[in-house]
Amino acid sequence: MTASKSTSAPNFETILSPALLPLYSLHGKTVVIIDILRATSSICVGFHSGVSLFHPVAHPDQALALEKEGFIGAAERNGKKLDGFSLGNSPFDYLSSHLKNKKVAITTTNGTRCLHLSYEADEIIIGSFLNLKAVAAYCKHKNQDVIAFCAGWKDKFNLEDTLFAGALANSLSADFTIECDSTLAAIDLYSNAKNNLSSYIKKASHAQRFERFGIEHDIDFCMQNSIYDFVPRMVGDNLVI
Amino acid sequence: MTASKSTSAPNFETILSPALLPLYSLHGKTVVIIDILRATSSICVGFHSGVSLFHPVAHPDQALALEKEGFIGAAERNGKKLDGFSLGNSPFDYLSSHLKNKKVAITTTNGTRCLHLSYEADEIIIGSFLNLKAVAAYCKHKNQDVIAFCAGWKDKFNLEDTLFAGALANSLSADFTIECDSTLAAIDLYSNAKNNLSSYIKKASHAQRFERFGIEHDIDFCMQNSIYDFVPRMVGDNLVI
Repeated sequence: MTASKSTSAPNFETILSPALLPLYSLHGKTVVIIDILRATSSICVGFHSGVSLFHPVAHPDQALALEKEGFIGAAERNGKKLDGFSLGNSPFDYLSSHLKNKKVAITTTNGTRCLHLSYEADEIIIGSFLNLKAVAAYCKHKNQDVIAFCAGWKDKFNLEDTLFAGALANSLSADFTIECDSTLAAIDLYSNAKNNLSSYIKKASHAQRFERFGIEHDIDFCMQNSIYDFVPRMVGDNLVI
Repeated sequence: MTASKSTSAPNFETILSPALLPLYSLHGKTVVIIDILRATSSICVGFHSGVSLFHPVAHPDQALALEKEGFIGAAERNGKKLDGFSLGNSPFDYLSSHLKNKKVAITTTNGTRCLHLSYEADEIIIGSFLNLKAVAAYCKHKNQDVIAFCAGWKDKFNLEDTLFAGALANSLSADFTIECDSTLAAIDLYSNAKNNLSSYIKKASHAQRFERFGIEHDIDFCMQNSIYDFVPRMVGDNLVI
């Protein structure tokens, strides 16, 4: 596959944590935001349920204020839904027919922050295992440099976001130039884990935190491969499909 | 092995890049500095050749100034030895009987910087594949929290330093608590690569850079496992064994 790759093939790079973002230029690139457990997975579920747009905000107060303008507020911090909100960060919160044609103002510990940090990118899209094939097809068709941007956990590296970066890079390896060590590592970690992603993630510390909250089912849900065929993307200040 | 681990087993964590250092506390911990290609490997070679101490400095000018006080100056930037210095960063520079009982003032792109950044640690030691078993034995005997601190390449993640962190963690898994995702990833990457470290590293971008400089032999040398049985450590402002 590599032999057929054009010398002008676009680059695929991976940012393993928001703390590493200053080392990379996003200018003229497509940035794939990755927060597998659980913001980017839940956003995909929301669109599947008919949400018309997600408006990412930095603070829960902003999400609450927007409820007066017809938005549904969604807020998560430290893995838990905040009091006073009907939606948190669990994919099951977003599996509801009540969300059809609704606008959601969302803030999460890691994922929505990355959306705001990526403002200089040419385009920002949302990646999760739930829409992996659609994201890969989108990047291949666009034929532009890609940055897989892992949200991590409070700026620390995490396994589940890195595994998705590896899965995406693996899907695009015939059409993109992959030289960065972060992506090479992500591909190898994904190759190790791909036959049983859920059990692999459950060994991760992030997953261990979730188990303590009794929401292990979220992990099984979020590891489903390509059940949705759309790609949420930022248009102006909103995510749409 | 895990079942016999004491609940008070010390923690093993991995810092994948100096840019992630602010997320970790080094206080009361043993920090293992890792710059496999090539500072920490070359420092081990120097001690094997009889160097009495390494004095890490931030700037090449400091290394030159110390030559007037009887030090040998060693300086590398961007993978190359700087003009005016007899020693750079290649392990072969340090395989010399002329270094016996000499003091070396050294500055490198990534490795010596990490030594300076780790000042708050309880102890700072030097890790490389060349002294892997000795480092593992030292950490096990000390029975204190360990941080494997990967120097990376200009703050970016690199594979070879991560592989060493994984090798060390793997050696210590029966005696340390390992929960951080970075260490779990490092262990898996090492398990993938351990039967042929050199060829694995040659696929890494860092190694590709070295190949362009024609110093691929350095990689083969630096991947030798446990040929030295000492552990360089910081005492005051110097590294000694």
